[in-house]
Amino acid sequence: MAETWLPSLKTPDPQSGFDLAVKLSRVAVKMTQPDADKRTKMRADYENDADALIMVSGVVATHFQTIAAANDYWK
Amino acid sequence: MAETWLPSLKTPDPQSGFDLAVKLSRVAVKMTQPDADKRTKMRADYENDADALIMVSGVVATHFQTIAAANDYWK
Amino acid sequence: MAETWLPSLKTPDPQSGFDLAVKLSRVAVKMTQPDADKRTKMRADYENDADALIMVSGVVATHFQTIAAANDYWK
Amino acid sequence: MAETWLPSLKTPDPQSGFDLAVKLSRVAVKMTQPDADKRTKMRADYENDADALIMVSGVVATHFQTIAAANDYWK
Amino acid sequence: MAETWLPSLKTPDPQSGFDLAVKLSRVAVKMTQPDADKRTKMRADYENDADALIMVSGVVATHFQTIAAANDYWK
Amino acid sequence: MAETWLPSLKTPDPQSGFDLAVKLSRVAVKMTQPDADKRTKMRADYENDADALIMVSGVVATHFQTIAAANDYWK
Repeated sequence: MAETWLPSLKTPDPQSGFDLAVKLSRVAVKMTQPDADKRTKMRADYENDADALIMVSGVVATHFQTIAAANDYWK
Repeated sequence: MAETWLPSLKTPDPQSGFDLAVKLSRVAVKMTQPDADKRTKMRADYENDADALIMVSGVVATHFQTIAAANDYWK
Repeated sequence: MAETWLPSLKTPDPQSGFDLAVKLSRVAVKMTQPDADKRTKMRADYENDADALIMVSGVVATHFQTIAAANDYWK
Repeated sequence: MAETWLPSLKTPDPQSGFDLAVKLSRVAVKMTQPDADKRTKMRADYENDADALIMVSGVVATHFQTIAAANDYWK
Repeated sequence: MAETWLPSLKTPDPQSGFDLAVKLSRVAVKMTQPDADKRTKMRADYENDADALIMVSGVVATHFQTIAAANDYWK
Repeated sequence: MAETWLPSLKTPDPQSGFDLAVKLSRVAVKMTQPDADKRTKMRADYENDADALIMVSGVVATHFQTIAAANDYWK
């Protein structure tokens, strides 16, 4: 991943900040398992696993906290 | 999800902030599993699974922390 | 839950703040599983499950962090 | 638990703050499972379960964060 | 690990901060299991385990929060 | 544990702060399971369990966040 994918934590509004949080949660998975085929295979599993989806939601929540702070809560 | 669903983190009081935290925890699940039928199917499972409900409660707690900070704790 | 159950995050002291944290951890469960009978049934399970109790304790810890900040740590 | 068990988050030093964090993690368990006999029974299980002990350590970490902030990190 | 591997939490931009967060999440594993052969063996397991990858992503999220704060969110 | 083991959260640099975070994550385990023999026995298990190691890494991340804040991020 040599290209720039995270130039800034600033987003125009909370909703795009939430999208960025989802993205960050996925990038960390990608950096740990760079093989796209294996990720696709796993996706079939966790997409239908409530526990896994809730865990993903928890990771997004932590990233959203960071992004919200970075944007001064879009005050 | 092109429509605006998160215009602001501001809420009139703590209780509506808590409602928003619950909403955020659900949206992240929705963004990871966009198929409503599959989500409904899983809901039947995790609704009766204490561990899953506690995990959901944990995600809500993280989001509520963010929202409370954004509202200066409704001081 | 139309009634007001969370008018403020302010509490007179740390201990009542801790009680409120426990309450918040339970309300999120209630909002995800509104059926009281099903919750009672699950309670019988997780009350004797160390892992579940530790997870609950973790959710309480996150809420207590928020409430402590809201009360300026009762300084 | 009508008696006062948490009059303050202030502690004289980091180590006693850590002790308090351990205490808070246990109180939340006690408030969810008030039956001492059942807790003793479960203790025999989780005391020898690495995963449970690590989870406890995680709850302590969150409480210690709160207590450290309340004491201005004992600067 | 006597050599210097973490001289600073400062990074030039968010993306390199994210890389550092991934590194921190791995170093803690390394410090708990210093045997490289055993880690390689385990890697084969968790790389194909969605739950484990999501958990890794959660650890990265916490570290990224710290690093982002250390860099004043690269404002 | 009557001796002083945590006189301060101050460390000379980020790396020694990380070492302290690892230490804190272990002390909490020790305080919950004071029997060294039982801990040694469990260590054999979790050292080869990827999930357990990732969970440890998560606990370290939370403690590192606290220690980093206590040191003003070693700015």
